[in-house]
Amino acid sequence: MRNLKITLAYDGADFCGWQVQPDRPTVQGLLAATLERVTGERVLPQGSGRTDAGVHALAQVASFPLASPIPAGNLLIALNDLLPPAIRVLRVEEAAPDFHARKSAVAKTYRYLIYRGAICPPFLARYVYHHPYPLGEAAMIAAAGEITGTHDFTSFAAVDPERTPQCAPNQRAPAPSERGSEDEVRSSVRTVFSSELRRDGDELVYEIRGTGFLHHMVRNIIGTLLLVGKGTLRSDDIPGILAARNRSANPGATAPARGLYLVSVEYE
Amino acid sequence: MRNLKITLAYDGADFCGWQVQPDRPTVQGLLAATLERVTGERVLPQGSGRTDAGVHALAQVASFPLASPIPAGNLLIALNDLLPPAIRVLRVEEAAPDFHARKSAVAKTYRYLIYRGAICPPFLARYVYHHPYPLGEAAMIAAAGEITGTHDFTSFAAVDPERTPQCAPNQRAPAPSERGSEDEVRSSVRTVFSSELRRDGDELVYEIRGTGFLHHMVRNIIGTLLLVGKGTLRSDDIPGILAARNRSANPGATAPARGLYLVSVEYE
Repeated sequence: MRNLKITLAYDGADFCGWQVQPDRPTVQGLLAATLERVTGERVLPQGSGRTDAGVHALAQVASFPLASPIPAGNLLIALNDLLPPAIRVLRVEEAAPDFHARKSAVAKTYRYLIYRGAICPPFLARYVYHHPYPLGEAAMIAAAGEITGTHDFTSFAAVDPERTPQCAPNQRAPAPSERGSEDEVRSSVRTVFSSELRRDGDELVYEIRGTGFLHHMVRNIIGTLLLVGKGTLRSDDIPGILAARNRSANPGATAPARGLYLVSVEYE
Repeated sequence: MRNLKITLAYDGADFCGWQVQPDRPTVQGLLAATLERVTGERVLPQGSGRTDAGVHALAQVASFPLASPIPAGNLLIALNDLLPPAIRVLRVEEAAPDFHARKSAVAKTYRYLIYRGAICPPFLARYVYHHPYPLGEAAMIAAAGEITGTHDFTSFAAVDPERTPQCAPNQRAPAPSERGSEDEVRSSVRTVFSSELRRDGDELVYEIRGTGFLHHMVRNIIGTLLLVGKGTLRSDDIPGILAARNRSANPGATAPARGLYLVSVEYE
């Protein structure tokens, strides 16, 4: 049996997230169904983590066993022929027998885009969070740096991380899931290698790289940074919010899914 | 009674084109309904021309009478609050009493985007025509230049320009309408000031500026240029196709709507 590693990009706007769900369009579900059409084999590709409804991916990684001898390059072409244009397979590679897209991951990077212009171009509406109101961006940039390090991120995690995701594709407020390795699932401690906010033209671009992420963690960080921008919180409130290890200690809301991108997953 | 000029951008993927139709989402229909919600007045904004289902606009122009004294800036904000994010009002201006978005137009510019990379990023899938197959681009660039000038464009027009547009929003092959001034509606003669194809990174970008355009004219030009790229036609076949004044003399297909943008409308 081969073990394959597949790298995917997707526009999450029209999907109910990564994880397969009955009667709902999900990336994992469509990928499994398309693999079955191409190879005749029923396999459920395991992603590096779930992404919520509306969340995009520039390079999600999944792994799965396959008996078929179809060459990797042909499988890539066949999958892209049959998948909707909103999901693209970027690479198919043979992986070591013990490779697992989630368990083998050592780091992930997420990006969040906030559009600051007065009028959001219609072509960006599905791909950014439009926030044209005044924000103290310097304070937000300082606060973003406070996230770096090894912390218990309970104050930035969804209260009910195991809740089944609700979904209304292409709606404003969708739902849940990102997970790290199995050990990390049990603990809420994660290491963030970098957490940086910068202005790029009309956009505020947030990028975070770490060992793994709790459910809603990136979107809750953004919600918290927005409160810093509004002056409700100060950047030096972040350490106290982290130390509280309690979501109720963090007044930040969960920012909309449509601004969030899984940028890359790193392996040894 | 005021006469207002409104400039709009829209992502055409989810709309059944510009023109109002019963029980179908159209840009004109949504704009009229939203104007009524804001002002209480039932007016049907007249566009510079119709755009087909799936066709986008960077700066469509429409005009309409309004009795309400609501300041133009407030109207812009109110419309953008209520319209879907896929339609954005860019400007609202007071116009001269005799201004009419279609009749007063002296030139229009359209753009068409062909994505040439092997894998089309999912975030572009709604906004380009993906054509990764070999094309003789130099011949296409030469052929694009042959379109310039004053010609009878019947060979590049839809056979039945008055057909009611069919529509399945966000599908691959949608339908019809662009028109020039009232005189131009009767004749098929148009003046094309410039017709240029260029390579820009992974995209072939076609831009055409002229007095007006027949129904499907830009998409049929693209279909014809693609046949030149494939070697079925040569760039010096274009003058003969124009001279035939017969759609059947042109083997070019109508290129998909999703690559087409109304870029701008010019007035005296």
